[in-house]
Amino acid sequence: MSGTGHLVIALDAMGGDGAPEIVIRGAEIARQRFPNVHFLIFGDEKAVRPRLDKVRKLAAISTIVHSDEVVTNDMKPSLALRAARRSSMRLAIDAVADGRAKGVVSAGNTGALMAMAKIVLRSLDGIDRPAIAAFLPTKRGETLALDLGANIECDANNLVQFATMGAAFANIALGVERPSVGLLNVGAEELKGNDRVREAAAILKASDLPLVFHGFIEGDQVMSGIVDVVVTDGFTGNIALKTVEGTSRLYTDFLRQAFRASWRGRLSYLLARPVFRQLRARVDPRRYNGAVFLGLNGVAVKSHGGTDAFGFANAVGLAIELAAQGINDRIRESILRLTRKPDTDSGIAATP
Amino acid sequence: MSGTGHLVIALDAMGGDGAPEIVIRGAEIARQRFPNVHFLIFGDEKAVRPRLDKVRKLAAISTIVHSDEVVTNDMKPSLALRAARRSSMRLAIDAVADGRAKGVVSAGNTGALMAMAKIVLRSLDGIDRPAIAAFLPTKRGETLALDLGANIECDANNLVQFATMGAAFANIALGVERPSVGLLNVGAEELKGNDRVREAAAILKASDLPLVFHGFIEGDQVMSGIVDVVVTDGFTGNIALKTVEGTSRLYTDFLRQAFRASWRGRLSYLLARPVFRQLRARVDPRRYNGAVFLGLNGVAVKSHGGTDAFGFANAVGLAIELAAQGINDRIRESILRLTRKPDTDSGIAATP
Repeated sequence: MSGTGHLVIALDAMGGDGAPEIVIRGAEIARQRFPNVHFLIFGDEKAVRPRLDKVRKLAAISTIVHSDEVVTNDMKPSLALRAARRSSMRLAIDAVADGRAKGVVSAGNTGALMAMAKIVLRSLDGIDRPAIAAFLPTKRGETLALDLGANIECDANNLVQFATMGAAFANIALGVERPSVGLLNVGAEELKGNDRVREAAAILKASDLPLVFHGFIEGDQVMSGIVDVVVTDGFTGNIALKTVEGTSRLYTDFLRQAFRASWRGRLSYLLARPVFRQLRARVDPRRYNGAVFLGLNGVAVKSHGGTDAFGFANAVGLAIELAAQGINDRIRESILRLTRKPDTDSGIAATP
Repeated sequence: MSGTGHLVIALDAMGGDGAPEIVIRGAEIARQRFPNVHFLIFGDEKAVRPRLDKVRKLAAISTIVHSDEVVTNDMKPSLALRAARRSSMRLAIDAVADGRAKGVVSAGNTGALMAMAKIVLRSLDGIDRPAIAAFLPTKRGETLALDLGANIECDANNLVQFATMGAAFANIALGVERPSVGLLNVGAEELKGNDRVREAAAILKASDLPLVFHGFIEGDQVMSGIVDVVVTDGFTGNIALKTVEGTSRLYTDFLRQAFRASWRGRLSYLLARPVFRQLRARVDPRRYNGAVFLGLNGVAVKSHGGTDAFGFANAVGLAIELAAQGINDRIRESILRLTRKPDTDSGIAATP
């Protein structure tokens, strides 16, 4: 299995529409990108072994851990917690909890993965609620958005913690020293919004965190890429994310219909094919695959269930990067800065 | 001015980027569509009169009411309320309050218009909070969404009232007998979301309103057109609406960039011009122009400040339709059904 200096990632081989095939092929793509990784692959050995053996280099750095049980997509999180303790998903999470792996990736049931990861891995000290974070395509590069649905009700402190975690994530994934952070609101002025966002803005403004607080941003600015990190509660974040998906789908449909409606449209589509290919590549959901459950002891990444090997590899890549660069150590440091009050600080006052 | 049987609409001639030119030209387009309408046009007579006189038929059904004052776009709503009592916007609203007009349309300062309309026109009996409603383009026709930002914090009863008002609106504007209504949530299952949406869903499910309650819908379903009316709180609604705008803009930009990046792209763009024209027409924001401030004694419509005469005419058309077909009578009837408890109903129990 893992030698010294190797980073170990646990993979749930049985989650997602194309499991275990997509998981194995995705892991192979990730292996080529990150040479120092080992995999613990959890799943039905009969299904996993023959596929793994076909990819020799991957097999050499992987260990299969057999599991008979699978968390199905329609399983309620509460049931999965109670009844699926020997499932591939749960065993993969357990491997992170007991230190055999630094991170876990699954393309399976989102609710079950979140519930299990939360119970098994537990929140980091100083983090009241873990949050779901993912990248969105924008006019200028990518923007990390959180919380995308883990927490329906959030107070100001939750939002501040999301900002802290999101900045640590963006620092690693985007390579920005002090990522800019915007709080999603209904207007840019300081008096706008509810008490929660106003209080969170005040705390962030006064804080000494390794981020640049941009203030409030509105919904139409999320996709303009003016900040590296967009912070909101899980209710709004989930709806905003899905609204982006729905709007993108609508545009794609309208475009297709318009080009199919006439001979001129069909002809120009043929000519414009490379252009559309380029456009598709730019908004390719596989590029943005991988929602990270931030704020746990360990790295937990949810891959989209319908993605292919390329998409799954990106989710695995996120887990590797975050684990290798110590996302949780960075979050811990930031949380310490946040909780350290200037007056109890024996002279080392935080300058605003 | 208005003879018997004529519907009178008050226009704020001084609001919007192209005022008063756009307002006059928009009113003329609306006049051609709705022959039985008269206009009260509020604004600087020196600017309005020469423009109106150029459009003879419009001039014949319009009365100018002079006002020196203009509510500027940067004016705080509180200041506008106190200090702009002789402004064109305020006088136009006053005309609805004292019965000279049935509705008011302004392309000016949104916050000021909302604040003034709320104070001057007051809420309908049984409506705790007026809401902003507007149509969005979807895969199948249009969907009405509310609240788009009037109420940052909403309880279950507010959401139920929004559903009631939205259904009355959709009934008139879409011609659907019993419009389908969906509550925006983070999942379709009954247990998902916060207490507010769950409680609102329970009330709507048990109610006897002239609508079909579809249950919860998710953000990606807003644009699929599976319901006629989408209901949410003003915080989420505002962010979702602006996210739609931002995503649309991103797509348009990506498309433009892709077609400009190569000779092949530029050539196929030339060929595909009629296709793009058709596509633009389908998502033309002018078609969806007009946000209605629902739940007031009188009809108040906000036009986008940057729209042209065609867009302004659509906002005026909305005000005319809603006023002519008695939106507020319908809302009142529905609210009565909502507050009438089956047990105090002397035998006429509401069947589920």
